[in-house]
Amino acid sequence: MASLAVETGHQEIHDVERNGPAEKAQWVLNAPEPPSLWQELTGSVRETVLPHARRFPTFKDKGSLSKTVISFLHAIFPIFCWCRNYKATNFKNDLLAGLTLASLCIPQSIGYATLAKLDPQYGLYTSVIPPLIYAVMGTSRDIAIGPVAVVSLLLSSMISKLVDPEAYPIPYRNLVLTTTFFAGIFQAGFGLFRLGFLVDFLSHAAIVGFVAGAAIVIGLQQMKGLLGITHFTNKTDVISVMEAIWRAVHHSGRRNRKLFWLPAIAPLISVVLSTLLVYLTRADKHGVMIIKHIKRGLNPSSVHELQFNSPHIGEVAKIGLIVAVVALTEAIAVGRSFASIKGYHINGNQEMVAMGFMNILGSFTSCYVATGSFSRSAVNFSAGCETAMSNIVMAITVIISLELFTRLLYYTPIAILAAIILSALPGLVDLHEAYNIWKIDKLDFLACAGAFIGVLFASVEIGLLAAVTISFVKILIISIRPGAEVLGRLPETDIFCDVDQYPMAAKNPQVLIIRVKSGLLCFANANFVKEKIMKLATEEEEGSKGKRTPQAVILDMSNLMNIDVSGITSLVELHKNLASSGMELAITNPKWQVIHKLRVANFVTKIGGRVFLTIGEAVDACLGAKMAAV
Amino acid sequence: MASLAVETGHQEIHDVERNGPAEKAQWVLNAPEPPSLWQELTGSVRETVLPHARRFPTFKDKGSLSKTVISFLHAIFPIFCWCRNYKATNFKNDLLAGLTLASLCIPQSIGYATLAKLDPQYGLYTSVIPPLIYAVMGTSRDIAIGPVAVVSLLLSSMISKLVDPEAYPIPYRNLVLTTTFFAGIFQAGFGLFRLGFLVDFLSHAAIVGFVAGAAIVIGLQQMKGLLGITHFTNKTDVISVMEAIWRAVHHSGRRNRKLFWLPAIAPLISVVLSTLLVYLTRADKHGVMIIKHIKRGLNPSSVHELQFNSPHIGEVAKIGLIVAVVALTEAIAVGRSFASIKGYHINGNQEMVAMGFMNILGSFTSCYVATGSFSRSAVNFSAGCETAMSNIVMAITVIISLELFTRLLYYTPIAILAAIILSALPGLVDLHEAYNIWKIDKLDFLACAGAFIGVLFASVEIGLLAAVTISFVKILIISIRPGAEVLGRLPETDIFCDVDQYPMAAKNPQVLIIRVKSGLLCFANANFVKEKIMKLATEEEEGSKGKRTPQAVILDMSNLMNIDVSGITSLVELHKNLASSGMELAITNPKWQVIHKLRVANFVTKIGGRVFLTIGEAVDACLGAKMAAV
Repeated sequence: MASLAVETGHQEIHDVERNGPAEKAQWVLNAPEPPSLWQELTGSVRETVLPHARRFPTFKDKGSLSKTVISFLHAIFPIFCWCRNYKATNFKNDLLAGLTLASLCIPQSIGYATLAKLDPQYGLYTSVIPPLIYAVMGTSRDIAIGPVAVVSLLLSSMISKLVDPEAYPIPYRNLVLTTTFFAGIFQAGFGLFRLGFLVDFLSHAAIVGFVAGAAIVIGLQQMKGLLGITHFTNKTDVISVMEAIWRAVHHSGRRNRKLFWLPAIAPLISVVLSTLLVYLTRADKHGVMIIKHIKRGLNPSSVHELQFNSPHIGEVAKIGLIVAVVALTEAIAVGRSFASIKGYHINGNQEMVAMGFMNILGSFTSCYVATGSFSRSAVNFSAGCETAMSNIVMAITVIISLELFTRLLYYTPIAILAAIILSALPGLVDLHEAYNIWKIDKLDFLACAGAFIGVLFASVEIGLLAAVTISFVKILIISIRPGAEVLGRLPETDIFCDVDQYPMAAKNPQVLIIRVKSGLLCFANANFVKEKIMKLATEEEEGSKGKRTPQAVILDMSNLMNIDVSGITSLVELHKNLASSGMELAITNPKWQVIHKLRVANFVTKIGGRVFLTIGEAVDACLGAKMAAV
Repeated sequence: MASLAVETGHQEIHDVERNGPAEKAQWVLNAPEPPSLWQELTGSVRETVLPHARRFPTFKDKGSLSKTVISFLHAIFPIFCWCRNYKATNFKNDLLAGLTLASLCIPQSIGYATLAKLDPQYGLYTSVIPPLIYAVMGTSRDIAIGPVAVVSLLLSSMISKLVDPEAYPIPYRNLVLTTTFFAGIFQAGFGLFRLGFLVDFLSHAAIVGFVAGAAIVIGLQQMKGLLGITHFTNKTDVISVMEAIWRAVHHSGRRNRKLFWLPAIAPLISVVLSTLLVYLTRADKHGVMIIKHIKRGLNPSSVHELQFNSPHIGEVAKIGLIVAVVALTEAIAVGRSFASIKGYHINGNQEMVAMGFMNILGSFTSCYVATGSFSRSAVNFSAGCETAMSNIVMAITVIISLELFTRLLYYTPIAILAAIILSALPGLVDLHEAYNIWKIDKLDFLACAGAFIGVLFASVEIGLLAAVTISFVKILIISIRPGAEVLGRLPETDIFCDVDQYPMAAKNPQVLIIRVKSGLLCFANANFVKEKIMKLATEEEEGSKGKRTPQAVILDMSNLMNIDVSGITSLVELHKNLASSGMELAITNPKWQVIHKLRVANFVTKIGGRVFLTIGEAVDACLGAKMAAV
């Protein structure tokens, strides 16, 4: 079997008559019609909307109705799949992970709620209903659901432009809840209409830059509060030392998986210690701001708070869309990376439906936008979670806290919340990944830097817009980047490669072999490519001694995915220009769409049918024809 | 020589040891560093700015200074090149072509001036200075320079929004001249900074749609005038019959090259006849509007009319930019198509410099924006012009007319000008080409239709914007269109091709060979491609009887021009997912940038170095490895 290529080589020689170059050229020319634009459109719609259509049992099967219902329920509520095989050992791991998660989640939720300019209990509410719904509907086993820093910042920075949260806290909260509702509707809609690819439009590089920028904005905001209070109370040392310890612990936790619980419970310990400290020293009397009242009890209904006849409804829907995309992007990025580590598959569309429903129901129960958190998902993973059950454990722990412990948080200093938020930020500024992006792709780094600078110096929306614009302009530039590479034959093979990439490849002085360095020959690059090829052909002519003209130019089209009318026009002009310099043009290995269009546009007959499957055959034909002519 | 491929085939067998698959894989992996982004940038800047740098003699040569000056002068003033070999026979042909051109140009110029809402003599002025300058500086031999319909419409429709031409004719004219100056500056700037590629951004399809839309807008405007007058005078028959005759003649002229002069001089004859008719019947007393006074004499200076401190200066510069691009696009499209028919080369950047200077100097001498006219260039070509001398002949003829015959045009009815404009329009609506575009490329047709509808139902700017937007969105869609094609081995060869395009290609059940259907694996399509490949790999698994799993997936990367960080992340995830299903991933034939990035990102080591030059070698390696493992 290992000598297959050699065997085939033998066969090729023997059967050179039967499957000769002429017959292969016919294979190229007589390819079946490619699917029309309409067929492609309907095909891709069908594929995206009904990806698993074939896998569902049809109604002809026995007992199929119940089977269909069951597989439908399994698709919508993946919990039914995994809970059947759920064992006590699984639960032990999930319980541990869930409790660890809760100890990090409770202080973070309170902190992020203040970041979103809501009362602290709204953060806790958001850690109850959304994780429960996600556990039932989501497909990731590692995501930790709840409020996150970036989304909290997005909400407060965009909605405070509509209503001042200081002056009008209740109308502000109503708008936040309405935004949450819209975000849920958009997310569920993306999932139901299989528009999952929209989330891909925020590139990895853009997210890295955007999140880092947002983290620094949050950090500066919190720093202000933190420095404000240290000025009054001289507690700087405690906090800064604690923070330094926390960071050290955080890093060691990252390095040593057994110490994962240290960074996870450090915030809770900080809260407990600082609360105790304030209570004992009565520091609140000396200017330390404290949380004071957190409303006790479970999420109240907030259906009546949704405002659909607000004058800001258009703006709110727009903010909902932005928040929906950012939240989904974060969650799906987190979900995918852990799924790929553990080797299971998450279903992007189902994830969106789950996120959508959890935010819609969340908006009815006093929750603001929840999504998968980078930092808490990492803790969840490190703590050894096995299923979404850890989210349920966490939610139940938060419920218990809401019922029992809210009064204990009375003396918690607000500064410690700032410190907790601050301590989560370094994890969001991923310098290592930014360096990686710089190393791999400079233009990707530009998108990253654009998002970062945009968020930092302009606004969140401008940062996002900059990132998306740079990313797409980059695609455009790469796609239409005109260029042509000269090919040469690799020694002792029939393989032709770029002579720059493979310095051992030998050019043939009689035949110039050129490949377009682009996937698309279109209006924006066709003329440039044409002139480049003409230049290469005529330079070749001048360069060598004795003015040895290449007798033919072979254009290898194996790169070209598509061509447009301007591209074909340029090829026709190229053919005419070469002909007037006494050179022939031959093309090799055109792709499906390209050969179809060239045939429709009569280009094949214009160049005298000089279309070949391989470069080798084209070289032979060109040289053979010249030999015959001489 | 014809058996080169076969010979190589033999050699390959003998030398299989020396240049074996392992060594070839090393060629792939040890390619030299591709040029960095910075090198590419500086390289492409150098290439665009100094394309002929190498061809200029250096100062080390003998007498090089004078040589350099001469070659520089030849580059700037191509007239020096061709006029040295200019013979009497050339002049005979150019004289005939120039006179024919003038007979069409004089009535058209008057008509287009009224279309631009200027006095008739400004059209004639524009047919004097610009053609003379172009003849000295331009590189096309066939272009006929002067005012054209589309640019006249553009100017009047955009500038009348700033100043009402009826109420304030002189300020309006000042703005038109200032716009002309700006258009010239932009054009010359594009040429000097070698930004010729900007003109390519209006695709062929967009131009076809845009010009057709503009022609219909002009037609409707003129029709109004034409019908208005027929209502008063019952001259309908004469004009409509004349027009019908003219069109018939125009078509026959197109078909029969010997009759080219018929459509060319028909407008002049119409003008003479109708002027005579009005003069004899004194129809102007019965309501027929006539031109009356055309100012006699050559172009007056208009330097004092340029207004750089106008409050509209920003708008005027913007209009100048739009007009500059449209005018250049039209001229260069015309120039290129005739150059390719006659087989000579026009220099895009020099063309822009020539157009720029002719419009700058034109704006000093009472000319509005001139460019190469579609219809008159065709007449010039058909009349057998040989050099730009025909433009000089035409300009001199117009000068003579301005000096001697303006008085004779007193009784020319304005309706006949409308008829002349109308008669030029059918040539601008190129239904045949639109059908061609539809046949070849449906998305190109969309750009064409967008431009057409935009111009017709919204405005000229919106039409242009629609066309450019659709064209670039189309590039984006094609570039990021995710997809993957399954490859199979062509019978009795070692060539692997898309099984849809080549139905005779045979798939190997043990190895799934896949090629990405895109030139770019990036954030916008990488995830989709990954899932598609996973689906193909697992479907294969389910489809065949007895659950024969493919043992390996070979990803042919020969299509991929580039990859970004998200693309690499997706490949890593693909590798992990395949590994967890027990399948190996191998890649073949990565391009220069791609293999470089994959190496930098450590992807090559992640997949265990399974990188091959050809698919055949990868297949052998995958099967061999599995055999060994069994």
